[in-house]
Amino acid sequence: MGIRVAVAGASGYAGGELLRLIAGHPEFDLVTATAHRQAGAPVTAVHPQLVGLDLVFAATDAATLADADLVFLALPHGESAALAAELPESVRVVDLGADHRLRDADAWSRYYGGPHAGAWTYGLPELPGQRSAIAGATRVANTGCYAVAITLALAPLIAAGAVSPADVVVVAASGTSGAGRAAKTHLLGSEVMGDLSPYKVGAHQHVPEIKQATGATGLSLTPVLAPMPRGILATVTAVPTGDADPRAVLAEAYADAPFVHLLPEGAWPHTAATAGANSCHLQATVDVDSGRVIVVSAIDNLGKGAAGQAVQNANLMLGLPETTGLPLFGVAP
Amino acid sequence: MGIRVAVAGASGYAGGELLRLIAGHPEFDLVTATAHRQAGAPVTAVHPQLVGLDLVFAATDAATLADADLVFLALPHGESAALAAELPESVRVVDLGADHRLRDADAWSRYYGGPHAGAWTYGLPELPGQRSAIAGATRVANTGCYAVAITLALAPLIAAGAVSPADVVVVAASGTSGAGRAAKTHLLGSEVMGDLSPYKVGAHQHVPEIKQATGATGLSLTPVLAPMPRGILATVTAVPTGDADPRAVLAEAYADAPFVHLLPEGAWPHTAATAGANSCHLQATVDVDSGRVIVVSAIDNLGKGAAGQAVQNANLMLGLPETTGLPLFGVAP
Amino acid sequence: MGIRVAVAGASGYAGGELLRLIAGHPEFDLVTATAHRQAGAPVTAVHPQLVGLDLVFAATDAATLADADLVFLALPHGESAALAAELPESVRVVDLGADHRLRDADAWSRYYGGPHAGAWTYGLPELPGQRSAIAGATRVANTGCYAVAITLALAPLIAAGAVSPADVVVVAASGTSGAGRAAKTHLLGSEVMGDLSPYKVGAHQHVPEIKQATGATGLSLTPVLAPMPRGILATVTAVPTGDADPRAVLAEAYADAPFVHLLPEGAWPHTAATAGANSCHLQATVDVDSGRVIVVSAIDNLGKGAAGQAVQNANLMLGLPETTGLPLFGVAP
Amino acid sequence: MGIRVAVAGASGYAGGELLRLIAGHPEFDLVTATAHRQAGAPVTAVHPQLVGLDLVFAATDAATLADADLVFLALPHGESAALAAELPESVRVVDLGADHRLRDADAWSRYYGGPHAGAWTYGLPELPGQRSAIAGATRVANTGCYAVAITLALAPLIAAGAVSPADVVVVAASGTSGAGRAAKTHLLGSEVMGDLSPYKVGAHQHVPEIKQATGATGLSLTPVLAPMPRGILATVTAVPTGDADPRAVLAEAYADAPFVHLLPEGAWPHTAATAGANSCHLQATVDVDSGRVIVVSAIDNLGKGAAGQAVQNANLMLGLPETTGLPLFGVAP
Repeated sequence: MGIRVAVAGASGYAGGELLRLIAGHPEFDLVTATAHRQAGAPVTAVHPQLVGLDLVFAATDAATLADADLVFLALPHGESAALAAELPESVRVVDLGADHRLRDADAWSRYYGGPHAGAWTYGLPELPGQRSAIAGATRVANTGCYAVAITLALAPLIAAGAVSPADVVVVAASGTSGAGRAAKTHLLGSEVMGDLSPYKVGAHQHVPEIKQATGATGLSLTPVLAPMPRGILATVTAVPTGDADPRAVLAEAYADAPFVHLLPEGAWPHTAATAGANSCHLQATVDVDSGRVIVVSAIDNLGKGAAGQAVQNANLMLGLPETTGLPLFGVAP
Repeated sequence: MGIRVAVAGASGYAGGELLRLIAGHPEFDLVTATAHRQAGAPVTAVHPQLVGLDLVFAATDAATLADADLVFLALPHGESAALAAELPESVRVVDLGADHRLRDADAWSRYYGGPHAGAWTYGLPELPGQRSAIAGATRVANTGCYAVAITLALAPLIAAGAVSPADVVVVAASGTSGAGRAAKTHLLGSEVMGDLSPYKVGAHQHVPEIKQATGATGLSLTPVLAPMPRGILATVTAVPTGDADPRAVLAEAYADAPFVHLLPEGAWPHTAATAGANSCHLQATVDVDSGRVIVVSAIDNLGKGAAGQAVQNANLMLGLPETTGLPLFGVAP
Repeated sequence: MGIRVAVAGASGYAGGELLRLIAGHPEFDLVTATAHRQAGAPVTAVHPQLVGLDLVFAATDAATLADADLVFLALPHGESAALAAELPESVRVVDLGADHRLRDADAWSRYYGGPHAGAWTYGLPELPGQRSAIAGATRVANTGCYAVAITLALAPLIAAGAVSPADVVVVAASGTSGAGRAAKTHLLGSEVMGDLSPYKVGAHQHVPEIKQATGATGLSLTPVLAPMPRGILATVTAVPTGDADPRAVLAEAYADAPFVHLLPEGAWPHTAATAGANSCHLQATVDVDSGRVIVVSAIDNLGKGAAGQAVQNANLMLGLPETTGLPLFGVAP
Repeated sequence: MGIRVAVAGASGYAGGELLRLIAGHPEFDLVTATAHRQAGAPVTAVHPQLVGLDLVFAATDAATLADADLVFLALPHGESAALAAELPESVRVVDLGADHRLRDADAWSRYYGGPHAGAWTYGLPELPGQRSAIAGATRVANTGCYAVAITLALAPLIAAGAVSPADVVVVAASGTSGAGRAAKTHLLGSEVMGDLSPYKVGAHQHVPEIKQATGATGLSLTPVLAPMPRGILATVTAVPTGDADPRAVLAEAYADAPFVHLLPEGAWPHTAATAGANSCHLQATVDVDSGRVIVVSAIDNLGKGAAGQAVQNANLMLGLPETTGLPLFGVAP
């Protein structure tokens, strides 16, 4: 008999990917999927890629969820905290929303609004010491999608003193699933195909999360919406403080990380290579003209950027091998 | 110790998907991947989605392959037969090429040219009696990508006498990976994005294969290249011979087929829902205006249309459960 | 001083394309663009491709429109008739909606519902005699997007007696802009990219229009949503009645049509080649296996399928050369 | 009788767009299109979007071209110089290749290799004084595609002293047509759809051109290949030197530029809005967290980034209004 798993907010894109991963996980039994507006509908009416999975959406309430051993919360930002507060401590909870990511209540209010719910253990296992912190936690705040792509590229360089934290410039493009499944005109296929466009320039809510996770003190983040369903490509540049080889720093940081790959020299990350997987691909160089360090990272925003990451955290929380049930390889082309 | 598996022609798209599936298969040990022009290169130089897989392409020769228990041939049409002839009978072989699909030597010559290599057991397990035929075979000819999508939609209706075999009209659109990985101008991203275009109209080499597999005697097939990497959507229309409900016929035919799903009434197949999976989604109706039966099927051309199908066949040949190591669910969105 | 032109319903995709064409038309002065919900907003807030056009959406009412010499109605189906009835006969009106296309009131009710507004002159100039009918009209019903693609492929063959009208099978795929600009989940970029899916199978409202325009008596139409913003590719098959060469029939039918091109033998239509233009590309063959005639046509659903067609009709109504202000060439790649 | 125009290298994507623009230009007569390998083929065999244009590719030689009044060279980098040297001074020449862009012979050798052909008048009319320089020239070096997007965003800010030239960080993504029409595996539709990937990181040949055109002294450029046929989105960040409002600087710089639009506050550029047009859309802000100025520009790489720009330059050289024959509005969606 496996670990009983529930997903709250399973009608969104991260929720659907969670269901796919949980259904294929050798230790998990998917017992409950909740959805506010879709309660009563078959899961496959919303997620046709899961045809064959015989499950009906339940309503989202704490009593239903409390019956599980492990709960993933994939709710809109600001909705997790109240629900989580009603779950018994014995239930392990991974929150894919932002409610419990930030330690700084002011930053929370500025970027998300509303009351700050407090911070949980931050669910990025590849940060130093974080694997064991997660293993000891019953509440984990999953990372933001941009945050994980950028933090994996940047954190080791700042930690090693190889780059200055004060002047980090990032342009990161995301596939459309990062913007969610709510029907909005600017996310229509007609609008996004053939189009690149920035949004929330200088105002993205992942900025304080990235600064908290990396130690960056000055961060310019320009998010871009890209014409593809999945994937984040983050280009991170920073000013080197000395002659440290950024590739060497990254290689050492991720020597034991099964999902983070520093590519061979000359190979640059492709988002398509991470589609459907829990992987992060990295490459780094020092720019000849500007002298800046450039690190590029690619992830699947629904994989390492959301659902894959959440399962990785749950594996650690439950004492399972980190890679259990998680795709190592992407679906490409 | 697992079954030792080799892939010949592993640098193409079907080859890459085979490597992904084999690497994740619980009973398979991937020991060899060969490639003509890429011999000596790391597999990940060609397939970045497999980063983490530590394997170098070998040259394609029989001696190397003969060392495996199971060989997948993913070679250009016309190249499998000579190589297969050199492999010992004890090695199980699944040929993803067309060389051994057709029983009719004339049809072979007309559509492919060159000498006919003879027919192997046809690798479509969902055809009546075919599961056991495959289970008893050491040589299996995997299906063509269009052929599997169209045959799954059509064969049960002809077999049941529900439609006439004499006037079948099919329009089937495929993602670009079906056209292979060779660099050709008309397959450039710049050419295919935003574009739909038919090709090989009335001249596609899968016509005789579909007729052989379904019993159709008159078949009009218009293939269309679609702006997506993966997926086939086949619209199959035929003239009903009586009042049989096409949905009932299909439901009965695939009651025990784990990968073929007749969708609930009102739901139509989406290719994206099959991406990365070995599934086939079907829906059928009788057209009000024309009285024709319309069946639509969706597959991933690299999944159920090629590599997934090949692994399914291999599972049967080896006495494994049919679904071993095969994704049931698609990667969407 | 030019012809004063107004567009009602200018916030949709056909409306936006109309504004682009009118703004570039040497004889037209764009004086009014109306939009129900966007009234008061700059046109460029909705249509950023028109940046530089200094115009604010007005509310949609007859008084505003009556001031123009020429009015294009690009309203949702069922909304044109009442508005048109309030416009003085001296104002020329082209209705891009369906309200005035069908002569058969029963067919209207069955496919659209509600009361039938009666039929106007049908706005497909390439039909025999239709150019002069349009030239003499003050009210013209523009064609449906699928209808124009299919009718141009089929009508001459039926008219010439080259194919039977009784068994026409069509599969036609459209880019997403054909589904409009209203925010709907199934039209999100995340849903449509990488996906092909049929819809309204055997139930599309263009069926009676196509039958009326071509004389087809039995018509199976399967519409497919394709992952591209613009374009329709229609594959039309029919049973030949004799040995007539379908290419010869089409060549003669369109010898004097500046926008309809029968491609050289061996070249098949590409939707991308018609993007932004008012062109229709055709090719035809007789299928070797089935004996069916196959005609494939490509148009831009917003060009010859909507706005371009509408301007062509308006040119004829006003006695201008048919091609005035209309792009002959597509924007590709 | 119009100006006789020839295009050398007309089989590529920039060449095809030139043909489209020239064919629609009221003062130009398209007399010659040359192509090395396609000589003798109809233009429409390569560019189906131009069906209706009755022209056959000639071989590329100076004698053929010398007969025209105006010659556009759309040849691979390094091939223009020798050909241009053979054309009489009376023929006006716009070179879309890189051969005559750089004044610095060392930079040329470093980024392009081979002998430096010397610099022509730089064809970016929106730079101060450049309109009149172009008007007086018979030889104009058209801008690089990335260079025009980045220079229009950056040059006024450096010129006004509003930002430091020493630390400019740019990430710019381009559609695939920017990589040309030669058949290469990494440009296949299967590879690029769903994918973002950087290339030539810190090594792109437009770096010296941008530095020359803007005065930047330290420039980090990360080019990214994006899954769309056309469009460049450049995100340019720089360190402000004082309190100058970057929007005010840009507004003043382009007050009289018909093709460059600073968008209203809050609206950010979309590449799709520039498709098929000669426009550049700009927006700027000061990033709250980092204090950096962020300017984003969008162009069509084949429009303002190549063919449109070339026609704009030719208009100026010939004393025609700058906008003659050039699309002001994009084709969207």
